[in-house]
Amino acid sequence: MSDQGKTVTLCGWVQTARDMNHFAFVDVRDRYGITQAVFPNGDDATKEQKAMYAVAQKLGREFVVSVTGVVKERINKNKNRDTGDIEIIVSKIDILNTSKTPPFTIEDNTDAKEDTRMRYRYLDIRRNPIREALLLRSKLAQLVRNYLSNQNFVEVETPVLIKSTPEGARDFVVPSRMNPGQFYALPQSPQTFKQLLMVGGIDRYFQIVKCFRDEELRADRQPEFTQIDCEMSFVSQDDILNQFEGMVRHIFKTMVGHEFPKFQRMPYSQAMKEYGIDKPDIRFDMKLVELTDVAKGKGLAMFDESELIVAVNCEGQGKLTNKKIKELEKMAKSTVCSAQGLVYIKCQSLKEGSLKIASSISKHYSDEELAGWAKKCGAKDGDLICIMWGQTHKTRESMGKFRNEMGTRLGLRNKGFEALWVVDFPLLEWDEEAKRYQAMHHPFTSPKPEDMHMIDTKPGEVRANAYDMVINGVEMGGGSIRIFNRDLQARMFELLGFTKERAEEQFGFLMGAFEYGAPPHGGLAFGFDRMCTILGNAPTIREYIAFPKNNMGRDMMIASPSIIADEQMEELCLKTTVEVPSS
Amino acid sequence: MSDQGKTVTLCGWVQTARDMNHFAFVDVRDRYGITQAVFPNGDDATKEQKAMYAVAQKLGREFVVSVTGVVKERINKNKNRDTGDIEIIVSKIDILNTSKTPPFTIEDNTDAKEDTRMRYRYLDIRRNPIREALLLRSKLAQLVRNYLSNQNFVEVETPVLIKSTPEGARDFVVPSRMNPGQFYALPQSPQTFKQLLMVGGIDRYFQIVKCFRDEELRADRQPEFTQIDCEMSFVSQDDILNQFEGMVRHIFKTMVGHEFPKFQRMPYSQAMKEYGIDKPDIRFDMKLVELTDVAKGKGLAMFDESELIVAVNCEGQGKLTNKKIKELEKMAKSTVCSAQGLVYIKCQSLKEGSLKIASSISKHYSDEELAGWAKKCGAKDGDLICIMWGQTHKTRESMGKFRNEMGTRLGLRNKGFEALWVVDFPLLEWDEEAKRYQAMHHPFTSPKPEDMHMIDTKPGEVRANAYDMVINGVEMGGGSIRIFNRDLQARMFELLGFTKERAEEQFGFLMGAFEYGAPPHGGLAFGFDRMCTILGNAPTIREYIAFPKNNMGRDMMIASPSIIADEQMEELCLKTTVEVPSS
Repeated sequence: MSDQGKTVTLCGWVQTARDMNHFAFVDVRDRYGITQAVFPNGDDATKEQKAMYAVAQKLGREFVVSVTGVVKERINKNKNRDTGDIEIIVSKIDILNTSKTPPFTIEDNTDAKEDTRMRYRYLDIRRNPIREALLLRSKLAQLVRNYLSNQNFVEVETPVLIKSTPEGARDFVVPSRMNPGQFYALPQSPQTFKQLLMVGGIDRYFQIVKCFRDEELRADRQPEFTQIDCEMSFVSQDDILNQFEGMVRHIFKTMVGHEFPKFQRMPYSQAMKEYGIDKPDIRFDMKLVELTDVAKGKGLAMFDESELIVAVNCEGQGKLTNKKIKELEKMAKSTVCSAQGLVYIKCQSLKEGSLKIASSISKHYSDEELAGWAKKCGAKDGDLICIMWGQTHKTRESMGKFRNEMGTRLGLRNKGFEALWVVDFPLLEWDEEAKRYQAMHHPFTSPKPEDMHMIDTKPGEVRANAYDMVINGVEMGGGSIRIFNRDLQARMFELLGFTKERAEEQFGFLMGAFEYGAPPHGGLAFGFDRMCTILGNAPTIREYIAFPKNNMGRDMMIASPSIIADEQMEELCLKTTVEVPSS
Repeated sequence: MSDQGKTVTLCGWVQTARDMNHFAFVDVRDRYGITQAVFPNGDDATKEQKAMYAVAQKLGREFVVSVTGVVKERINKNKNRDTGDIEIIVSKIDILNTSKTPPFTIEDNTDAKEDTRMRYRYLDIRRNPIREALLLRSKLAQLVRNYLSNQNFVEVETPVLIKSTPEGARDFVVPSRMNPGQFYALPQSPQTFKQLLMVGGIDRYFQIVKCFRDEELRADRQPEFTQIDCEMSFVSQDDILNQFEGMVRHIFKTMVGHEFPKFQRMPYSQAMKEYGIDKPDIRFDMKLVELTDVAKGKGLAMFDESELIVAVNCEGQGKLTNKKIKELEKMAKSTVCSAQGLVYIKCQSLKEGSLKIASSISKHYSDEELAGWAKKCGAKDGDLICIMWGQTHKTRESMGKFRNEMGTRLGLRNKGFEALWVVDFPLLEWDEEAKRYQAMHHPFTSPKPEDMHMIDTKPGEVRANAYDMVINGVEMGGGSIRIFNRDLQARMFELLGFTKERAEEQFGFLMGAFEYGAPPHGGLAFGFDRMCTILGNAPTIREYIAFPKNNMGRDMMIASPSIIADEQMEELCLKTTVEVPSS
């Protein structure tokens, strides 16, 4: 209100213009809010005011205007707007630009299809939710950089034009004109460079950096995405966890006022056993309960043939109709969970003497047996126990997905923040298709020293000094203590099926660097887009990316990718093997 | 000294190890300096100390160690080191890693060839000058981002995978696997995206961003480089100049303690006339003086046929031998200046009555005439006047280069900071080869409203609202007020020789955006690598880039670019037309 009586100039867009005969009211929107501009046209309006009124009559939605006038307190204040207490009595208006009628309205909610929004992303950005998402992202970036800089981390830009390494996801490549037939690759992460910075004595490194993966794009993936990338020398895993737990605690407190308690550190094995997933959402309980010992060997073939029989208790869901339960069964068998099937126990009454249980397997087990299972699951009257069976790891994974889906359906996953570290990941995982081990994290991750004795005999059982930070069931970041010894790195490549020659060709520079006094080091990377999404509680990372691509990797606005000129193809010594219209 | 008597642990690299029999001295280097670790071995050394001494004897250069011991004040302090006042009496040492003998010593000065340094960049980074360069860069990045954030600028990440536009420099391109035969391009700058952000209502944008140009690499160019990219809406050119002059003043004050006075704003035409260059180094005077009116038409053919005859006065250089002057002439005619030739006047005595002048053109002009020229040039006894002639613009450019070269040779360009804005650039420049106009800045730059009347009749004379910030003769940044009207943008593309179809195909998205209420806007971009170089007074931007490429665009350390796998070529539907060894 301090501006009252002052003459101000406001530039912005026409949100709405209403002609009330004695007045025209124009809502002017800028980055900071919406302000009502008043154009008097009554008997006491001056000649100049009447002229301005005439201009106001011509305004259309999204015209760009500059209005000058005196600030006045509004009689009927608009409590929904920051600037709703005041209006401007206009003495001068300039139309800076006109506008065609936009393809959708610039309102908080829009029914425009995503394709239309993306095609006109510059209009979409004018909408509050998108603008606020971009502002949140900007604020978070400054916060992270200042926090890390204050902790003596050095920001180093690593190169974008690097070397293709066919390990992991697919690289985007860039043909080199000066080196015909050769290609750069865009980094999937600055992993090797940050390790080389450690070898170079930059003992604390960070960067908020674009990374690239040429993968099939699922709901929440983009071909280019942003990481908060960090690395430290001369540290233990504990140092790293403490350092970045501190950062994340600071972020959540500053950005959304949430104070985390100390993060629990859950071994991977426990996460899989209790939650069926390596990124458990611990905002709700519904833990996996193993029923193998009580359910197996009682003559029900599908159970008897299973390694694991596991249940979750869905509180208060015992009254679901059989139709609803059929739907759950369908969902469990679908790609959502990929389970073999679902068996239920409706706990109608668990009271001794007056047991009342409805179950799809009541033919095979007595009510007393099932009541025993229910007790094991901590179920009460009115609860629904859901059971899956099969191979241990797969069944846990199916049940983990089922648990998450049920958590969502029961409204247990739509608010609050719960964070934890998942630690002690396996070093390797067996790739059934390729018949060889893959690095669970990446080839640079260090085995746990105490497990090193198994590296030749039982490599699959070796755990790594690798860790993930999980918030609300989302992997917020992850990292590891790295190998910093040439021989161990070479052994690791060997375990992953590299020939000596290929390891040397692709990673010789790193193994070479390890021979010149590489310090012990480790680090991690956070998904920056994802962190925005969690903080802003938005459904997709696309909300936080100014100009995202669709799931064909296309930018609908600029119509990219596109064909390039024949001359450029020639300069690059390239030919395409598909028919494209000549440029 | 506050640590004296404390037990500390220090991790770092062995800089030197000296065995003095009763003691071993090991200099341990980390990011923060060098500390002397002492290993007693005298008669009063304990058994444990003798064991540690034995370990110390095995240390080689660049071994990685962790030493624990008590901090003690040094008797013979090393004033050249931050940590030179103290030493550590070691009670425990761990060798964390060994090192081969590095290919060059880790010292401030190195005689290693650049190729070797680049191949072992991780060792090069251990050297103080490179580490300090990276620290300066990191500090500058935080400073800039905090300054702009505090001024309400929003950091927005623009995409890296964009659309190829054959205007300007050559694009790097990225084949799209999901859209066979089509390509993304890497951005030469985020120009169109930042303009779209303005259309989107983000009225103050910034980003420190990687940009890419596939050009022949000269001394101080890299295929990937970094810009401080900024844009504002609803502003005049003056607003932008003031905003960013403020930023640069803040940067120089904070980083190097230099306080700039208010920057002068020099029209392009004045810069060309007085300095022969659009980025004058105003740390020294030596302005161009036009002699056309006094030197032309006196019978010296080469002058008589010239549009312009122009001189600079090299103070105190009148005593140069004819041999030295011959060298200057050679330099002037070389690619350094590309001049037609050089004529000199040695002002030995300019006193009336006792004139003494030596000149290569004394056959054609009397001493009195030459003395008149000298007066025009502001020359004194002992000065050397150098003269060039020919077509106006070319001759100015040659003389501008000569002036810079002489400034360097005379030691006038090696210290201090002088900044200015060069403004009022021409909108277009004539491309003699292509027989058409080119945009002097870029096709999005707005003509000056007061020159708009010439756009159809004398487009070459239209000036633009474009500006460069110049510090010490280096273009630190530049920008312009942009076109924000579809019709004017279309006219501009027409002037630049675009067909309607090509303009629409390449920039239809931008012209389309201008139809939906585009605000007036403008901005600029600073060369971030270059700004580091000026602040740190280093000879090349490569010092400030952690992992630079050589002038064949190769990263010598990782051996990139390289061939990629046949399968990847197939997936991308690409074939190379040159012979490369199969992968």
